Amino acid sequence: MSERPGNKKIKEVRALCERTSARRKTGLFVVEGERGCREIPASDIREIYVSKGYKKDHPGINEDFLLDDKEFAKLSDTQHPQGILVTAAQRSYHLGDIMGGELYLLLETIQDPGNLGTIFRTAEAAGATAVIMSRDCADVYSPKVVRATMGALFRVPFIYTDDLRETVGALRQDGVTVYAAHLDGILLKDVSMSPRRAFIIGNEGSGLSDRMAEAADMMIKIPMKGRAESLNAAISAALLSYWNTI
Amino acid sequence: MSERPGNKKIKEVRALCERTSARRKTGLFVVEGERGCREIPASDIREIYVSKGYKKDHPGINEDFLLDDKEFAKLSDTQHPQGILVTAAQRSYHLGDIMGGELYLLLETIQDPGNLGTIFRTAEAAGATAVIMSRDCADVYSPKVVRATMGALFRVPFIYTDDLRETVGALRQDGVTVYAAHLDGILLKDVSMSPRRAFIIGNEGSGLSDRMAEAADMMIKIPMKGRAESLNAAISAALLSYWNTI
Repeated sequence: MSERPGNKKIKEVRALCERTSARRKTGLFVVEGERGCREIPASDIREIYVSKGYKKDHPGINEDFLLDDKEFAKLSDTQHPQGILVTAAQRSYHLGDIMGGELYLLLETIQDPGNLGTIFRTAEAAGATAVIMSRDCADVYSPKVVRATMGALFRVPFIYTDDLRETVGALRQDGVTVYAAHLDGILLKDVSMSPRRAFIIGNEGSGLSDRMAEAADMMIKIPMKGRAESLNAAISAALLSYWNTI
Repeated sequence: MSERPGNKKIKEVRALCERTSARRKTGLFVVEGERGCREIPASDIREIYVSKGYKKDHPGINEDFLLDDKEFAKLSDTQHPQGILVTAAQRSYHLGDIMGGELYLLLETIQDPGNLGTIFRTAEAAGATAVIMSRDCADVYSPKVVRATMGALFRVPFIYTDDLRETVGALRQDGVTVYAAHLDGILLKDVSMSPRRAFIIGNEGSGLSDRMAEAADMMIKIPMKGRAESLNAAISAALLSYWNTI
């Protein structure tokens, strides 16, 4: 039997939408919209909030909280709420869980939520083993990133690391060749790709740090024509992930 | 000698930022920020607006209008204005200008400004001859798209067409093989790519229309692993544009 959420409850959900600190403290995050909510593994679901409008169209749903459409709009992070919102438990992976794979994406200071989400979505399609992020990447559990992953967040393992260079060392030790995407790198056509590979992608504005470029086995470059100086970070990640596979 | 813009002037610039109709009426658009403004061909520049803060750091600039930093913030479309904004003349291309090329991107109803801008940026890097858009794509001259193109807007020819199917016909007549990106298509590895090629990319949510899929020579599909159902439109455009070239 569902109830109406009190003001305190609504504030808690809004905090989960808006603040990394609230998400970190509770170990929860928010997923909105029908498509996104369908992707959540049942065991990760904590609470289900629906609007009366949504309930009318989906009478079989077993919600925890039922809200007037107007109230739901206050809860929602989107401009056009679909009427369903779920709080879910964050996942936690360890480096040991993701070792032994074939394709890794290592992200240094990727800060645009849309880019980060798109990288997850593409990583799943390309068959990546995991996404590994420096601590200063955007929060994967922020609503914008969650939306842009299109569910890949629940299926692609990921870790945040305080020392991305150390993780590069661990992967190399494990037999993975680590390539750094860099404007001074060797053009892809001149590189014979290793089947077990990792790609380091740098920040949207400033590119990869020297420190990370040096940590890789090799610096590589996607060819660019015209006067293009660089590619969008998610585009680079996609071209490298799919390189030699299509 | 520069002057202070009156309220009318400021309203006009804001209209150019906010409304496609104002841009269409005047044939002008707005470029903001140092990097973006540097990319504008001199002959396209109409008026230069700078803040007093920017002027202090760039005393040599020959601005038309000088504003207090606070006033400039009102003019600006960004949250952290850099202090330089230029109104520029829109470019106009015709189908005849872009015939005879090797690589075309055809976009059906691409509505996300970030995606559209990223597609232009990638198209330049991949060496595309032109981008051809259905009339209901986002406006390339909206500030978000302009920013995301990173200057490619000034270098990649483009046209909007009322009948994308007709344009497909014209390209095919010219000897270009037109491939439609479609979930029911043939996997890329089973397709022998034609050197003169065009790719049709469909809408972010609903994919390519049957009407456009049928107009192509062939439907093709980028392989996807996991439970990924589709790729972001800009990612698809990138993988297809770079297909077989790296």
